[in-house]
Amino acid sequence: MKTAIVLVSGGLDSATVAAIARHEGFEVRALSFNYGQRHVLELEAARRVVAAQGIRHHAVMTIDLRAFGGSALTDDIAVPKHRDAAAMSQGIPITYVPARNTIFLSFALAYAEVSAAQDIFIGVNALDYSGYPDCRPEYLRAYEAMANLATRAGVEGKQKLHIHAPLMTLTKAGIIRRGTELGVDYSLTLSCYDPAAPNLACGACDSCQLRRKGFAEAGIADPTLYRS
Amino acid sequence: MKTAIVLVSGGLDSATVAAIARHEGFEVRALSFNYGQRHVLELEAARRVVAAQGIRHHAVMTIDLRAFGGSALTDDIAVPKHRDAAAMSQGIPITYVPARNTIFLSFALAYAEVSAAQDIFIGVNALDYSGYPDCRPEYLRAYEAMANLATRAGVEGKQKLHIHAPLMTLTKAGIIRRGTELGVDYSLTLSCYDPAAPNLACGACDSCQLRRKGFAEAGIADPTLYRS
Repeated sequence: MKTAIVLVSGGLDSATVAAIARHEGFEVRALSFNYGQRHVLELEAARRVVAAQGIRHHAVMTIDLRAFGGSALTDDIAVPKHRDAAAMSQGIPITYVPARNTIFLSFALAYAEVSAAQDIFIGVNALDYSGYPDCRPEYLRAYEAMANLATRAGVEGKQKLHIHAPLMTLTKAGIIRRGTELGVDYSLTLSCYDPAAPNLACGACDSCQLRRKGFAEAGIADPTLYRS
Repeated sequence: MKTAIVLVSGGLDSATVAAIARHEGFEVRALSFNYGQRHVLELEAARRVVAAQGIRHHAVMTIDLRAFGGSALTDDIAVPKHRDAAAMSQGIPITYVPARNTIFLSFALAYAEVSAAQDIFIGVNALDYSGYPDCRPEYLRAYEAMANLATRAGVEGKQKLHIHAPLMTLTKAGIIRRGTELGVDYSLTLSCYDPAAPNLACGACDSCQLRRKGFAEAGIADPTLYRS
């Protein structure tokens, strides 16, 4: 059985990706990141998702970007609420981390090497996040090319690393439909930027709005508890 | 004055790179990594190098690869001593970290973004480390291409990230000559894999041997205190 590293944030997208990787026959090793207080509830959700899918290996990497002196990166910032689609598409989101996917994939590459894995799965989505350079297919291809020059196995042609982004062309509704087919329990996932508790989403931040709209468009009952 | 991020390990090579970046007119921000107990003395050396060169910003990023379950990565391992050049060129060195330069450069990319810097300096050296895939020019070019797809500024063509590897084609003796011209105080640097104290190198590990040979070939007095 081939091993794959799957980036699991605790959100809806990565829970779906983990289920897809398992469905494709991979033994999944999950990788999550702890990069500040705001993400403690996200990590709890990640642990629930990992447990529910029977994934036995789960590495949690702590990274403290406060070392760079940009305190705003992880400090408390007011989460914008009730924004429309036009407003959502502008500006830097609350969960922004500089060079985020590059850092996440680099740790996934290290974990893959330690695990003798050739496959990394990431839940990026060009439709929902069209403004993000590091969610585009050309970025992921460039990352893959770099990664295959970074390791001895890659250079010798013995082992070719593949980065899978199975959600790339799906809408949020399409992701929810695919995950539901695969038995993903979305009540365990947390998308909210400002949750009141592990199981209580605010209902008004950008992420909650996208999630609600996705379930509505998919015609699937949304199991999320929203505060408003 | 343009800002550059310089990876500073506390060793001879990166101290030279920092001096080269400063000589080229950059305001240097140093970035070091703490990835296990073994490296505490290295970090002390990095702090000495940074202070001696008048560098005002120094970020230290802690990364704990034990999260991957590969305990051997950061646990105590006997450091090989008195190996000849043939033996040195084989096997994985004691300081090996999976996907090391990829992780280091990814944090440098984040730090560059936070600092509005377009330049990253790294002390890789194709001659001394010919066996390392992630020290080769083609790897660094692929990393640069990926990095320029990862950031909005890069995509919009406003900002082009450059990765500088000024030691790439130098021998150890050449590095020492260049650093000496630029006033680097090599007594502050630590290359040893098994130091007895911040200022006391073992003299017998691979790194100590390469360092001694470098000073001898450069015809420059070696300021290092060796135990044997």
